Amino acid sequence: MSFIEQLNQSWSQSGSLLCVGLDPDVSRLPSALRGDKSQGIFEFTKAIVDATHDLVCAFKPQIAYFSAESAEKQLVEVIAYIKSNYPDVPVILDAKRGDIGSTAEKYAVEAFERYQADAVTVNPYLGFDSVAPFTAYKDKGVILLCRTSNPGAASFQDLEIDGVPLYKKVALAASNEWNDNGNCSLVVGATWPEQMAEVRALVGDMPFLVPGVGTQGGDVEAMVKAGQTAAGSGLMISSSRAVLYASEGDDFAEAARAEALQLRNQINAHRSGL
Amino acid sequence: MSFIEQLNQSWSQSGSLLCVGLDPDVSRLPSALRGDKSQGIFEFTKAIVDATHDLVCAFKPQIAYFSAESAEKQLVEVIAYIKSNYPDVPVILDAKRGDIGSTAEKYAVEAFERYQADAVTVNPYLGFDSVAPFTAYKDKGVILLCRTSNPGAASFQDLEIDGVPLYKKVALAASNEWNDNGNCSLVVGATWPEQMAEVRALVGDMPFLVPGVGTQGGDVEAMVKAGQTAAGSGLMISSSRAVLYASEGDDFAEAARAEALQLRNQINAHRSGL
Repeated sequence: MSFIEQLNQSWSQSGSLLCVGLDPDVSRLPSALRGDKSQGIFEFTKAIVDATHDLVCAFKPQIAYFSAESAEKQLVEVIAYIKSNYPDVPVILDAKRGDIGSTAEKYAVEAFERYQADAVTVNPYLGFDSVAPFTAYKDKGVILLCRTSNPGAASFQDLEIDGVPLYKKVALAASNEWNDNGNCSLVVGATWPEQMAEVRALVGDMPFLVPGVGTQGGDVEAMVKAGQTAAGSGLMISSSRAVLYASEGDDFAEAARAEALQLRNQINAHRSGL
Repeated sequence: MSFIEQLNQSWSQSGSLLCVGLDPDVSRLPSALRGDKSQGIFEFTKAIVDATHDLVCAFKPQIAYFSAESAEKQLVEVIAYIKSNYPDVPVILDAKRGDIGSTAEKYAVEAFERYQADAVTVNPYLGFDSVAPFTAYKDKGVILLCRTSNPGAASFQDLEIDGVPLYKKVALAASNEWNDNGNCSLVVGATWPEQMAEVRALVGDMPFLVPGVGTQGGDVEAMVKAGQTAAGSGLMISSSRAVLYASEGDDFAEAARAEALQLRNQINAHRSGL
């Protein structure tokens, strides 16, 4: 099954557009899990997965939180754990890789073969030949940074080329000439509902990975209305810190579940066609 | 000593603008080193370092070649080996990371604390707050992708905003508002000497990391003339595959040295002020 098929099935089965981002920050783990950092990262992330798996359409581990702590082995184990226990939940590796073709091939091996991710985020700045080694994996998803959720998104992504902002140029490339295998998606930040609506109008039903709700302050109603497809779907709305650190005490998993449930319901309240 | 001071000293002491890129591709290692992949990667890279250290101004390990083989430990060891044995040769981690601020902080930890790199390559697409966590390490170098060496560079980097191509917008940001700590540099591909001359005219003596000679076909004379500073310096001219795989037999290290020597001399033949 391809990533897009898997995602459609997951949206349908879970009734959720929520994607929980797995960003295990060792400085914020409950004290009981801080003894062995690498093991703590695994145990924390596993507990979050167990507590939220039925509330999400996808999980999104952020590789930087693992790499900063030399915890690649734990990232492999987290993804394997999800696949063993919750095989219907697709896993997006948030890595934002991008390099020339021969090197991008190695990054594709890292994401899809080593970590067994179903999809990976990719930075488009290096152009077509930096993306092709990822899209060549036909059953995997390639989620290109389009309009990111951070304030710095405006530095370059908003610059206009003959009246068309760069992020729309990326959206057009991802939905046309780069999408021969039909496996491209886009990152469009929740913090910019106007831009999201414009991108949705350009690319049809292409899935969006939407970071920026929660800690980054994106407005859920505005974002769902701007980004959803006609069928009330098409979004993987990612929350990381607001869910993971809803409590930093021993009740972190229950608190994460409560936050995820609240956010799933808040999202669903604004979906059309439900 | 800061990266820029270290680099200036290295240019001066080595008499070389050559940077050898360390991209250990397991499928191209000599057969004697293919038994244990991770150990083979370390032994191969160490032999290249030993054979070329006096011919280079810097080494540039490419992290994807290590990550695809679960060889992070070997990357740590390679960099530690260079620092122990050739402490005057700066190490650039080619990682092309880029993410929102809180995640970029983790990537900066990965590059500068875990791997102990002296500089790291960074993708500018996410804008100012994705770069600041790297430049905050005042003594480290932050080498921003400007005009990359690959064919796909034209996809977005050449798009013009009111007559100014995107890569020049990046060059201006890196040399002005992002450069409070004076530790920014730029990636400018050897394959585009005209663009390189234009960027040099914009940014004064800022160092350029220049990939694309050798396998990618960049013209050494045109590139040196386009990119060097008035003092005949300012360039880290990176060759990876042409040096590493000059021979794929047991004589790979000698062949790499011969290729590096030839390339160093070819570069020096076109430097002004030598």
